[in-house]
Amino acid sequence: MSEIVLGANQYGKAETRVVRIVRDTARHEIRDLNVSTALRGDFAAAHTHGDQSQVLPTDTQKNTAFAYAKEVGVASPEAYAVALGGRLLDATPAARQARVAVEEYAWDRIPVGGAGHDHAFVRRGGEVRTVVVTVDGRGDDRRVRVVSGLQDLVVLKTTGSEFRGFLKDEYTTLPETHDRILATSLTVRWRHDVTTPEQVAHLDADASYAAVRALLLETFATTYSRALQETLHAMGRAVLEAHAGLAEIRFSAPNKHHFLVDLAPFGLENPGEVFVAADRPYGLIEAVVTRSDASDAGDTWLGTPGFL
Amino acid sequence: MSEIVLGANQYGKAETRVVRIVRDTARHEIRDLNVSTALRGDFAAAHTHGDQSQVLPTDTQKNTAFAYAKEVGVASPEAYAVALGGRLLDATPAARQARVAVEEYAWDRIPVGGAGHDHAFVRRGGEVRTVVVTVDGRGDDRRVRVVSGLQDLVVLKTTGSEFRGFLKDEYTTLPETHDRILATSLTVRWRHDVTTPEQVAHLDADASYAAVRALLLETFATTYSRALQETLHAMGRAVLEAHAGLAEIRFSAPNKHHFLVDLAPFGLENPGEVFVAADRPYGLIEAVVTRSDASDAGDTWLGTPGFL
Amino acid sequence: MSEIVLGANQYGKAETRVVRIVRDTARHEIRDLNVSTALRGDFAAAHTHGDQSQVLPTDTQKNTAFAYAKEVGVASPEAYAVALGGRLLDATPAARQARVAVEEYAWDRIPVGGAGHDHAFVRRGGEVRTVVVTVDGRGDDRRVRVVSGLQDLVVLKTTGSEFRGFLKDEYTTLPETHDRILATSLTVRWRHDVTTPEQVAHLDADASYAAVRALLLETFATTYSRALQETLHAMGRAVLEAHAGLAEIRFSAPNKHHFLVDLAPFGLENPGEVFVAADRPYGLIEAVVTRSDASDAGDTWLGTPGFL
Amino acid sequence: MSEIVLGANQYGKAETRVVRIVRDTARHEIRDLNVSTALRGDFAAAHTHGDQSQVLPTDTQKNTAFAYAKEVGVASPEAYAVALGGRLLDATPAARQARVAVEEYAWDRIPVGGAGHDHAFVRRGGEVRTVVVTVDGRGDDRRVRVVSGLQDLVVLKTTGSEFRGFLKDEYTTLPETHDRILATSLTVRWRHDVTTPEQVAHLDADASYAAVRALLLETFATTYSRALQETLHAMGRAVLEAHAGLAEIRFSAPNKHHFLVDLAPFGLENPGEVFVAADRPYGLIEAVVTRSDASDAGDTWLGTPGFL
Repeated sequence: MSEIVLGANQYGKAETRVVRIVRDTARHEIRDLNVSTALRGDFAAAHTHGDQSQVLPTDTQKNTAFAYAKEVGVASPEAYAVALGGRLLDATPAARQARVAVEEYAWDRIPVGGAGHDHAFVRRGGEVRTVVVTVDGRGDDRRVRVVSGLQDLVVLKTTGSEFRGFLKDEYTTLPETHDRILATSLTVRWRHDVTTPEQVAHLDADASYAAVRALLLETFATTYSRALQETLHAMGRAVLEAHAGLAEIRFSAPNKHHFLVDLAPFGLENPGEVFVAADRPYGLIEAVVTRSDASDAGDTWLGTPGFL
Repeated sequence: MSEIVLGANQYGKAETRVVRIVRDTARHEIRDLNVSTALRGDFAAAHTHGDQSQVLPTDTQKNTAFAYAKEVGVASPEAYAVALGGRLLDATPAARQARVAVEEYAWDRIPVGGAGHDHAFVRRGGEVRTVVVTVDGRGDDRRVRVVSGLQDLVVLKTTGSEFRGFLKDEYTTLPETHDRILATSLTVRWRHDVTTPEQVAHLDADASYAAVRALLLETFATTYSRALQETLHAMGRAVLEAHAGLAEIRFSAPNKHHFLVDLAPFGLENPGEVFVAADRPYGLIEAVVTRSDASDAGDTWLGTPGFL
Repeated sequence: MSEIVLGANQYGKAETRVVRIVRDTARHEIRDLNVSTALRGDFAAAHTHGDQSQVLPTDTQKNTAFAYAKEVGVASPEAYAVALGGRLLDATPAARQARVAVEEYAWDRIPVGGAGHDHAFVRRGGEVRTVVVTVDGRGDDRRVRVVSGLQDLVVLKTTGSEFRGFLKDEYTTLPETHDRILATSLTVRWRHDVTTPEQVAHLDADASYAAVRALLLETFATTYSRALQETLHAMGRAVLEAHAGLAEIRFSAPNKHHFLVDLAPFGLENPGEVFVAADRPYGLIEAVVTRSDASDAGDTWLGTPGFL
Repeated sequence: MSEIVLGANQYGKAETRVVRIVRDTARHEIRDLNVSTALRGDFAAAHTHGDQSQVLPTDTQKNTAFAYAKEVGVASPEAYAVALGGRLLDATPAARQARVAVEEYAWDRIPVGGAGHDHAFVRRGGEVRTVVVTVDGRGDDRRVRVVSGLQDLVVLKTTGSEFRGFLKDEYTTLPETHDRILATSLTVRWRHDVTTPEQVAHLDADASYAAVRALLLETFATTYSRALQETLHAMGRAVLEAHAGLAEIRFSAPNKHHFLVDLAPFGLENPGEVFVAADRPYGLIEAVVTRSDASDAGDTWLGTPGFL
């Protein structure tokens, strides 16, 4: 007979704004993070009977995020997230899994006299670097999965993009075009092919991030585009070909429409020179590019924004 | 040997702002919608070779959203979404599934002389009503799944909430409390136990929405809370007990912390009277309440914000 | 000879989120405020020499905002703002003037069994109530100016609005229309004709707010509109005619365009039934309606968003 | 006797998103603008009688913004704004003044093989460049005022900042500090000492902008800070000293608090290493630095966000 039961659940502390300064020398370093932690496991008693005895409070999760910024440090957001997730899982016997998501905001040194200042910074703006880590298992069974990524990387091509030959029905009014602006704000996530803390320790996450970002940009720039889908696929393929340590890569990309303005009523031609940038609606393309023999993703993508 | 291949993908038009006025009589009606459509299926050629011949443009999807607001109308956002999704699937041979998500913004008639005005409205504010529909199959095999819901329903209790007896470790500093403010901004989604267009036609979706919303609020108000988890679970159980036509219900609820301000330095007591409302960080509780024999959810939750 | 000098300046604490619960009986009351305070006066030494000896820290301003929520209470946001501004001015000898701006978020009691619950609330959404108070002078010379208002009151008429007979030039393409949707998101501020704390004490600010809001809505609904300008003017006039205690009223109103969708390509008529709601660009109308003999506004409008 | 009358008013089109591509050679250029125009003058008939005969529609203003992007081009946002404002004023006999505000979003060429790509760009992020122009007078009496600026330039110092010696009262709890993080998100506007179109034509606005921005950053970095006020004043003074063509400069600067986290409960020291970045409340400092003999500002600052 039918019963009403608790299904999947998780809980944690979202958006703890951890700023870590390294000031061992006069040349300070800064890591500016937005940290969200969550625990999954057998917390049914809290839901059904209000019994908190197995619940590590979200306030404690927040405290741990700060304490670990000091104790473990932030060699990279990936390394920090793996350590923090491991700790939260170890501290919570009822938990089966910890998930740690980190956003990092980049800062540049302020240029003074041709060199970067020791302790004054300007926020770079542009894309946000992201990390999502899941941690399972205890002791020697500890397994981790690491997804690096970025969001809000806004790119645009003023030519080298067409859209034609598409399916038509009675509601189709869009003319075909051989030359248009192509623009998008990229959210991209790529999964590292690592499953143990030791493997993570060997990742040079900062270098990897910079290389993937550069390759995404370069491929966007140099690929002739017959559709945003094709461009994303080319970017994903390029990244996986160049980075053997990555298992898969996922894209969520709004097609930020730029419409050519009709200047004919004013006696003016407009050969691709004046556009209106539209906010809504926008196309939205989402796609995964993966190795055919990619390692098992486990719960990696559970709860991570995106269409999957 | 390893290959690089296209994985899951979808595409569509997001956030088409459709406003439908019914003006058959002097007493106008308004439906104010934000419509996002997507198609899933075999669109590999578009990704790998830029071949658009099987791609119904997102511009056409937008046109169809507007045309259907006229042709089919908006009896309810659920009914409209099912019709629109069905049309997009039918128009796209390569598609396996259509997904239509709708947000609805509520308007009240402006009171004039004690009665609501015929054609002047004030936006209600508060929560947004949501609908997510997936449509599969063609002809007699057509299957639909319908999720109704709301987001940004902000509720608060000034007492009747405690938090104690929780797990402690060396990073725990939170004191136990027998009386606190409990506040959250609810995102809730509930799945109807329907799978055919005929079943959807028999839903009184507007009435169902109003009843579920009222019951969520009432249960929040009248349940003593030993944790936000317990409150959500009680709300979910109440809804499923009262609505036999619902298969499951899902919650995403930030714990919007209100901290008691320490007024002792100013010689003032503060017995639960003055609080600071904090923005970040916040707790985040996510949970599913379901029937043990709920119908198969299919791809219902694929791409729907939430942790699953 | 030219020197470089400090000009006008002010400083304060912005967006302190003060929540005040009254729990003298089992039927609790809530006031949910966002409080911003600022001081103006002779603070040149802080700017030119870093001398803080005359600077009441913004942290102290925040503390006072919380303490006054307890000591003075929040009979109305207007009364609270006047008291808080007076205190900050009194505490700061170098200050000439205090400015206190308050936003209030409305909560409704959750309906349970046909009545509002004692201590459970749902946030109303919709418009935000606003107050801006300036306080000058010490002791018997204390003078106050009080501006009440609202923002984000979104209203819409589905008919009863035209736009025609306008000025045309060679860049004009807009057709005239005899029937359109008129929609705006109102920011309105009205200045009370009070200058002493005693006069403020006699204001029934909550009742006044409710009456002005209702009259703004009713006038919007019942006025045929030949332009948004005309509608705003009618609303302002109606308020000043009905409320002798108000000196002036100011509007900032985006014309939120709703464009009729061309359904002709699909063989459909569209007699004012299907619209697209546009985000940007939008018209923006700003206007003051005032009494010809209004009292002096002093620095009332200094620093208050709006075009003046 | 008292009458109810129309006071100040203006109207226009806000946030027209104009994107201008220059593609005269294979190396394309992009100007990405958000343009808001407004007219001030004698438009009373529109308000009081709905008479639009003197009202140039905001739709026409939008059209002109696009047409001028083609006809006049965007040598700099300043030059474009002056031309556009002049045109709108000339087209509207009842207008006394036009105001044009422009935001510009910066794009960098995507690096490919060590060089910037010809037609692929990545949005820079970080601060937005701003321009506000007012245009008065017709024919030889044409007068213009030009304010350049930036917003959302986020800067931070990890040391070299103190806050002590401040005024104390019974609500003060803040301890003095000799070392803190100083962070702010700058909105700065500086007025050029120009009043004729010819003078504007001689401005190298892009170079001026880059130089002022660099000097603001450098001064922030190298000035020891006893208060945010002192830092802003030093920045303003440095800019006016270096740029004889600027009349005044205005700052609006939130003090983005970074609080040292207390790690003592966990047995950890925290010598300026781990901070929590707070959202609200924040300090807010606003100040003008000006030449003692600055030219008359006219209506320059009317309607421009900021406290004056």
